[in-house]
Amino acid sequence: MPCRRARCVRRTSCLPGLVAALWAAVPLAAETSPPADGRVVPARTLPVPATVSPQLRSMVAEAPDDEWKTVPKSTAEWKKLVGDAASRTLAKLPRLREALGVSVEPTTLAGVKAFWVTPRSRPARNQGRVLLHLHGGARVFNPGEAGTREAILMAGLAGFRVLSVDYRMPPDFPYPAALDDAVAVYRELLKTQRPATIGIFGTSAGGSLTLTTVLRARKENLPLPGAVVAGTPTADLTWTGDSLFANEWVDNSLGTRKGLIEATIQIYGAGHDLRDPLLSPVYGDFHGFPPAFLASGTRDLYLSNTVRVHRAMRAAGVDAALHVWEALSHAQWVYVPDAPETREYHDEVARFLDAHLGT
Amino acid sequence: MPCRRARCVRRTSCLPGLVAALWAAVPLAAETSPPADGRVVPARTLPVPATVSPQLRSMVAEAPDDEWKTVPKSTAEWKKLVGDAASRTLAKLPRLREALGVSVEPTTLAGVKAFWVTPRSRPARNQGRVLLHLHGGARVFNPGEAGTREAILMAGLAGFRVLSVDYRMPPDFPYPAALDDAVAVYRELLKTQRPATIGIFGTSAGGSLTLTTVLRARKENLPLPGAVVAGTPTADLTWTGDSLFANEWVDNSLGTRKGLIEATIQIYGAGHDLRDPLLSPVYGDFHGFPPAFLASGTRDLYLSNTVRVHRAMRAAGVDAALHVWEALSHAQWVYVPDAPETREYHDEVARFLDAHLGT
Repeated sequence: MPCRRARCVRRTSCLPGLVAALWAAVPLAAETSPPADGRVVPARTLPVPATVSPQLRSMVAEAPDDEWKTVPKSTAEWKKLVGDAASRTLAKLPRLREALGVSVEPTTLAGVKAFWVTPRSRPARNQGRVLLHLHGGARVFNPGEAGTREAILMAGLAGFRVLSVDYRMPPDFPYPAALDDAVAVYRELLKTQRPATIGIFGTSAGGSLTLTTVLRARKENLPLPGAVVAGTPTADLTWTGDSLFANEWVDNSLGTRKGLIEATIQIYGAGHDLRDPLLSPVYGDFHGFPPAFLASGTRDLYLSNTVRVHRAMRAAGVDAALHVWEALSHAQWVYVPDAPETREYHDEVARFLDAHLGT
Repeated sequence: MPCRRARCVRRTSCLPGLVAALWAAVPLAAETSPPADGRVVPARTLPVPATVSPQLRSMVAEAPDDEWKTVPKSTAEWKKLVGDAASRTLAKLPRLREALGVSVEPTTLAGVKAFWVTPRSRPARNQGRVLLHLHGGARVFNPGEAGTREAILMAGLAGFRVLSVDYRMPPDFPYPAALDDAVAVYRELLKTQRPATIGIFGTSAGGSLTLTTVLRARKENLPLPGAVVAGTPTADLTWTGDSLFANEWVDNSLGTRKGLIEATIQIYGAGHDLRDPLLSPVYGDFHGFPPAFLASGTRDLYLSNTVRVHRAMRAAGVDAALHVWEALSHAQWVYVPDAPETREYHDEVARFLDAHLGT
């Protein structure tokens, strides 16, 4: 098994002694930049998988968008980027609401903007239940009503009433504004809703925020929700998690962490220690956590961070379930409402929440 | 999102009309050879992951073994390859048995060779339970006592008495010899053991054989076991499953399906339709299947086929649980007995089986 190449892969292993000694004296900064050494994997061809549904195949076949490489150079450029993306999302929402029979109403709780997202009908057992939604978008995208897209899918496809939080975001509001808002709304919701009847969910940044909201709620001695759903949580803001490397450019939803994603992490973290569990919940203590549903895809840049959260939860005795979708990149199971994968995801989530939430 | 490269990824989409028409007339043979077109993913560097335990780090850091590229040219060469590998494994077994306090005794059931693998002690609830073990090794490797390695780990680390089947293999005995033997032993075991107290488990080829054994048992109207454990089942012998491509040379345990692995599939299949669920259980009907535990790693060449089995089982209403280990390649969680990942895998399996097997 061991062959020549194998001997050069460990940090310092191929350096002359003196250089190695100097290296050891330099403080590691692995969390803010990717490791520079490793094993080289050759280029490869990814066929269009026959194992995804026809509805998703063209999306899965697409090359990654080069826009992930471009970093805004000013606050104005950030706002334009975010605003343009939000406009594109907003344009699609009326049709999505219509197709799924979902209504959306703005509200304010504890001074935080939010939206009630309500399906035309829902199962009797879900009448008294509420899902708190923390939207995705790299902690920067999807302000205002643009953030309700995933909530509309969940309301329509899983049959729950959803409260979607329009939390504050960078560039104006770095950490901990988003978390403050999420916890404030949860605290307010607890005034009218038994905790066991509340689920918290989100995808990507929203999945991570779901986890940090529960960690902070516990820290503040609030009762915990009945269950959580974290779709591909970006649960580690440091440069850690093997699929960040193995699935770079394999994931065509995000492409790479280098560039735009890294920039979103920097403007969110704003100098805080990225290893703080309230920024990177994979480092949190999950003892006593509510049952958790975790989702990823085999091509997902955040596959590793999803399975790391799963393993950390299992080690802490949490009733945590993992679901991984074949050949899908980051969050692609919440993109196309009529794809079987999207239905399947929401069916699984509905069953999971039904099994764990109080009525 | 859509960019120029995206338009060239679908089969025929970049061919001139005439060539496309000719292509369409050629019968597709996608299941016996990899698709030739697709999206190119550039070479990348895989750092040694800090997210695996120190005990596994050097194994994870190794370059894939070039031996996976070499295909034996004759029956004699196959036997030498298999024999040499078995000798290396056998040499390690006495120390493994000693370290884990496990004894191994040869036996014969229904004319099939097998081994009773018994831990020095086991929990009271496991006294009446037996696990049927189908070893891995690409349907070709690990004949005789070499096949007991995984059984020794399971007996010692999970606390079960194990019956490990020394099923017949190619080049002398292609499909369905292995399946015949597995089902014959299961049928014999049913004479002394209530089905609910039997679990069936295996890794890789053994994981797939675990699934086909249950499918065949159901076909023969045998009562089904209480639970199954399929570690990274090579459940699709056709060229299907996205991680065969995405994780090629990322997985350093197998490297690539091309070469040796493909050859093992051909000598096992021996002309049978590889899409037959008794060869490729991912195409099977899982309705009524017992609870199933599935495991893979984020770098696993068979990650896709593991998650496809999980999804197929979930769609059929099976109580199926998925566990994916961070940064591990094919089956690396059953390689190093004292690695935390290996302990964790066997702890999870023990909990799962305890929850689902009768006493």
